[in-house]
Amino acid sequence: MKNDTIQMGHGSGGKMSHDLIHNLFLSAFNNPCLNKLDDQAVLEIDGRRLAFSTDSYVVDPIFFPGGDIGELAVNGTINDVCMCGARPLFLSAGFIIEEGFSMKDLKKITESMQRAAKQAGAAIVTGDTKVVDKGKGDKVFINTSGIGIIEHSLDLSAGNIRPGDILLVSGSIGDHGVAILTKREGLSFESPVQSDTAALNGLVEEILRAGGDGLRTMRDPTRGGLAAILNEFAEASRVGLHIREESLPIKPPVAGACEILGLDPLNVANEGKLVAVVAHEKSEATLDAMRRHPLGKDAAIIGGAVAENPGMVTMETHIGGRRIVDLPVGEPLPRIC
Amino acid sequence: MKNDTIQMGHGSGGKMSHDLIHNLFLSAFNNPCLNKLDDQAVLEIDGRRLAFSTDSYVVDPIFFPGGDIGELAVNGTINDVCMCGARPLFLSAGFIIEEGFSMKDLKKITESMQRAAKQAGAAIVTGDTKVVDKGKGDKVFINTSGIGIIEHSLDLSAGNIRPGDILLVSGSIGDHGVAILTKREGLSFESPVQSDTAALNGLVEEILRAGGDGLRTMRDPTRGGLAAILNEFAEASRVGLHIREESLPIKPPVAGACEILGLDPLNVANEGKLVAVVAHEKSEATLDAMRRHPLGKDAAIIGGAVAENPGMVTMETHIGGRRIVDLPVGEPLPRIC
Repeated sequence: MKNDTIQMGHGSGGKMSHDLIHNLFLSAFNNPCLNKLDDQAVLEIDGRRLAFSTDSYVVDPIFFPGGDIGELAVNGTINDVCMCGARPLFLSAGFIIEEGFSMKDLKKITESMQRAAKQAGAAIVTGDTKVVDKGKGDKVFINTSGIGIIEHSLDLSAGNIRPGDILLVSGSIGDHGVAILTKREGLSFESPVQSDTAALNGLVEEILRAGGDGLRTMRDPTRGGLAAILNEFAEASRVGLHIREESLPIKPPVAGACEILGLDPLNVANEGKLVAVVAHEKSEATLDAMRRHPLGKDAAIIGGAVAENPGMVTMETHIGGRRIVDLPVGEPLPRIC
Repeated sequence: MKNDTIQMGHGSGGKMSHDLIHNLFLSAFNNPCLNKLDDQAVLEIDGRRLAFSTDSYVVDPIFFPGGDIGELAVNGTINDVCMCGARPLFLSAGFIIEEGFSMKDLKKITESMQRAAKQAGAAIVTGDTKVVDKGKGDKVFINTSGIGIIEHSLDLSAGNIRPGDILLVSGSIGDHGVAILTKREGLSFESPVQSDTAALNGLVEEILRAGGDGLRTMRDPTRGGLAAILNEFAEASRVGLHIREESLPIKPPVAGACEILGLDPLNVANEGKLVAVVAHEKSEATLDAMRRHPLGKDAAIIGGAVAENPGMVTMETHIGGRRIVDLPVGEPLPRIC
């Protein structure tokens, strides 16, 4: 019976999302561009290569430590657009507002959208507003779609990873998810965790320059966290990925909150981080370039690709053991973005 | 107090929508592209002109006579993209699904999206799925954004209308709104009214060819109906628009339903109709071209632009009187699309 209806887990970015996408959306919309399952479509229009991406934001609460739904909606789509190395140019904004929502809050949200767009060098050029009856929505949902231009000729794709390649993460993981959850649950910790929401297009430019043709792919580990991205990479490239727990940048308050809440930081969403995979010989230069950028100052090499266990992600733990890093099943953190 | 919160009327396409857009969204997102307030943004990317548009669909019920939310979401955005004469190429699809929604219905909806996209010659190339808790959404909301390419060099804009120009409508008005309302309210009429949901890009191509540089602007009268579009035209071009009630194509069951329900067909949404404004000397040729297309067979000349009463829409009524056609105030028909 449960298989006949949509569950919260279908929006998790984990195993259930993965199955829904493969069994329902891909079979309906079947086309080569969508089937690649990158975070953005790469379009050829009249000889120009464009990136096109969409995301709806339903985060709860809409104001949280470090940001709000508006800023998140802009940064999140900017990030999806730029992960293929595109320069984001234009955004759309579609609002679904619940009757009775505060006009003052709507104003605050639109102002932070504008601020975020400006900072990323993109413009919100088209929009739409719908209102639904009280109790048929939840304050405000925002869809943003983005268009960027691809000015490099690199072939970046999750399917390009080869054994020997190096995995880099641009900074600490789990910040966004923990910030949302502690606010939502009314928890307080000694050092409150802030969302890491940020537009990564500037950092991406640095990585493109440093990684050059050694760069295989980039992706931002949002819903499903680092674990989901690494599993997608391993599956798409049919390589094994191996990471070391001790090399993962995790802020102590995030680690502490995860322990108390029973969460694995590998499954927790980030909104201002990316994972880059680069050829071994370009990994140090790429790491240096990342660290010189304010959004990459805590960047780290966390592991690499191996020929063994294709399609699988493994981790050497703090105590020297080895475990499989699976796609999260179900929904550890609903409505995180 | 009421001014401090969002009301259903803010999503109506009428006066309250108009005020919300001007007072809040335009002041936040202020940029020349958005400020034109066309249904789509026209973007210049590297020497190519593209059209970009977004719409969220929250129609209730999601299945209705003549279509469903999926088909509507594709056709509606195709129409917004092509009203500037662009050829629609690519669509995104963002789903916000309420926990517990039927998987079977979701499948039906995605299949009709795919059918509609294919028929319009566009591909759904990127997507996103969010799930919200039961009672925090309403079955399914769908955002689609669309990209099209502009291959003509005409300057089409609501601001281009001059006195003497002719107003054409591509067919009967009010069908979609009446179909939704009768289904939602459980009303039954002798001849049930079907939604007119359809992709108009083929018809637009014919109009471009026939109207040529006599074509001023096109728009599809969705929320707010014909009255809203005509008021937007009159305001943007600072001309008066005058229509004749007897020339409006309205199907008898639609006219009957509107009378019973106390609705003005001029305010009722259409989802497969367009209004074109053309120079007098091209109006007959354009009308003929429209009538040769299956979606324009009931096309009619309904009036024209005059120098008097700039910014105002007037109508000669059946009984020979003259009345002002205002922007609808409030929300006659919530969640129509």
